[in-house]
Amino acid sequence: MKEKATLASLSPYVPGKPMAEVQAEYGIAKVVKLASNENPFGSSQKVQAALKDALTDLEYYPDGGAKELKAKLVEFHGVKESQLLIGAGLDDVIQIISRSLLNSGDEIIVADPTFSQYELHAVIEGAKVIKVPVDDKGQMDLTGMLTAISERTKIIWLCNPNNPTGTYLPQKEIANFIARVPEDILVISDEAYQEYVTIEKESSSLPLLSTYSNLLVMRTFSKAYGLAGLRIGYAMIPEALNRAFEIVRPPFNTSSLAQRGAVVALEDQGFIEQTVAVNQVELAKWESFMLEQGLPYYHSQANFIFFDTQQDSQLIAKKLLEDGFIIRAGLRTGWLRITIGHKEDNQQLRDHLVKLL
Amino acid sequence: MKEKATLASLSPYVPGKPMAEVQAEYGIAKVVKLASNENPFGSSQKVQAALKDALTDLEYYPDGGAKELKAKLVEFHGVKESQLLIGAGLDDVIQIISRSLLNSGDEIIVADPTFSQYELHAVIEGAKVIKVPVDDKGQMDLTGMLTAISERTKIIWLCNPNNPTGTYLPQKEIANFIARVPEDILVISDEAYQEYVTIEKESSSLPLLSTYSNLLVMRTFSKAYGLAGLRIGYAMIPEALNRAFEIVRPPFNTSSLAQRGAVVALEDQGFIEQTVAVNQVELAKWESFMLEQGLPYYHSQANFIFFDTQQDSQLIAKKLLEDGFIIRAGLRTGWLRITIGHKEDNQQLRDHLVKLL
Repeated sequence: MKEKATLASLSPYVPGKPMAEVQAEYGIAKVVKLASNENPFGSSQKVQAALKDALTDLEYYPDGGAKELKAKLVEFHGVKESQLLIGAGLDDVIQIISRSLLNSGDEIIVADPTFSQYELHAVIEGAKVIKVPVDDKGQMDLTGMLTAISERTKIIWLCNPNNPTGTYLPQKEIANFIARVPEDILVISDEAYQEYVTIEKESSSLPLLSTYSNLLVMRTFSKAYGLAGLRIGYAMIPEALNRAFEIVRPPFNTSSLAQRGAVVALEDQGFIEQTVAVNQVELAKWESFMLEQGLPYYHSQANFIFFDTQQDSQLIAKKLLEDGFIIRAGLRTGWLRITIGHKEDNQQLRDHLVKLL
Repeated sequence: MKEKATLASLSPYVPGKPMAEVQAEYGIAKVVKLASNENPFGSSQKVQAALKDALTDLEYYPDGGAKELKAKLVEFHGVKESQLLIGAGLDDVIQIISRSLLNSGDEIIVADPTFSQYELHAVIEGAKVIKVPVDDKGQMDLTGMLTAISERTKIIWLCNPNNPTGTYLPQKEIANFIARVPEDILVISDEAYQEYVTIEKESSSLPLLSTYSNLLVMRTFSKAYGLAGLRIGYAMIPEALNRAFEIVRPPFNTSSLAQRGAVVALEDQGFIEQTVAVNQVELAKWESFMLEQGLPYYHSQANFIFFDTQQDSQLIAKKLLEDGFIIRAGLRTGWLRITIGHKEDNQQLRDHLVKLL
């Protein structure tokens, strides 16, 4: 009954309190959750309608091949079916990739800070995690990442825009980077927040797929599409890795409702456009607020902002919780990450923050 | 970009054709799927009603701690919350267990034939799979399994009732077995089909949990509960393994709809009773049919029957597909596994079978 030795240094995930529980515990009428970069505007109404009709036949296993969703993605992105990997959210995709490729002693390169799951799955597999700190603008240090490459490097995880810094690197820089990475190293661009990028028109690394056979691009329905509760995300993968990923992927890893919801969500790009437009306006207000308050922050191209409270940010988060606002501390000492919410909620949160800072 | 060496001997899962595709391809008005041991009677109507109300708030991540479902299971089984592991179906639970415990060179012991995922995940982890053939009644050979134990044995996978043989071993035999297994070896009883057992009143190994700290019991909502499409299952685990499993379990591995559906499904035990009652009657008819036809079969305590066609069973399955019946061949040369369906479908399938045998 001895667990794997690689787990010794790791800790179980501590689940956040469900919103209803926060409400009850603090006796608050309204709880506003701005901690997990969910879409405050919900999801496409077309998805909800479609799911209502999809509640029959739940006794059957989902289509393990996700044919309908893959056909839609083939059309949407102009990729081949064999380039697609479907997962129960990107957590699942990251797990499948890591478990398929990483051996004990291999190395991965990640930004610091970045999304924590890349590291978790590497450590479980016994791989070593090389962390390259973001620069003073909060951007991934691509030169530093190139320097960190060794003979043992197996995967380089880019997160663009990066979570939690929110910073985005232009596609030209990504392209220059990949061109300099040896072909046997997999470069992954996690584009979970890609839809929110407004600074350049082509904001995805997808066009680079045809040039670089060692590039993998990840997307999710959990952020702009507003379907985190359904658990579905995907990757456009090097075809050479299709076999390995399909061995490791549990045959029925996504539910029939998630597959159906994703198809309908892709069809409603109007919802995404509205979401991004409001996010851009509200993000600008948050940046103005940071400037007014003289608080260091990073320029975000995502649906959240990461800033330095220059105080005990855990304490501030705790006080905000008492006011009904759930936000994210603990990612860097003194800093907070706040998801961009509804106009009124953002304003109220800023009003509360001013009093605490 | 080299995949793990352990994947070399494995093949990707080949997804079955969606029912609609079979319908179109063969120009059949009605397709009856009796291949995956789903519940032909659907699921509790209360679940569908509850899910309709749960289609809001999909933008939020599910409760990673599955508090509501765990509270319900604590009440239902009389276990502690720390004894529960929730997964996206038992595939996910098997993955979490294997990835948490198995190292290269470890051994697992399984029946042969049995559910294929135990082997798959062991091989991915580099563990060796010791297969102990079922006896001439199709029952797991517990004595053979005890003999197969070595210093490297880490997990013994029991499947009770066993898939695909359908055979059930009485709890007394299971208890005697566990008592003789060294304490450092995890014994797992996969009770995916437990609800269907009618041969003895206490048909679960759950009461043994308080005596044996190396026992783990798995249950699913994909079979009798009729919720395979939602992807949810669970295990009652040794508390000592809670930490490891919660490290490896992806934090949001089950959807909010699956968690909600499972809670409501547990509350409607009347649906399970009806399902099991009809299954018992229809299973008896299948056994009579096998006797009449002189076809060797195993006594099933599940919702399927496994029998020897004494011919090319792949060919028979192909011909039945043309008649609109999807059943399962390929598990053992000459044998077929048929899920117990609706009364009329069972009769029609037998009528077709008679012509082919």
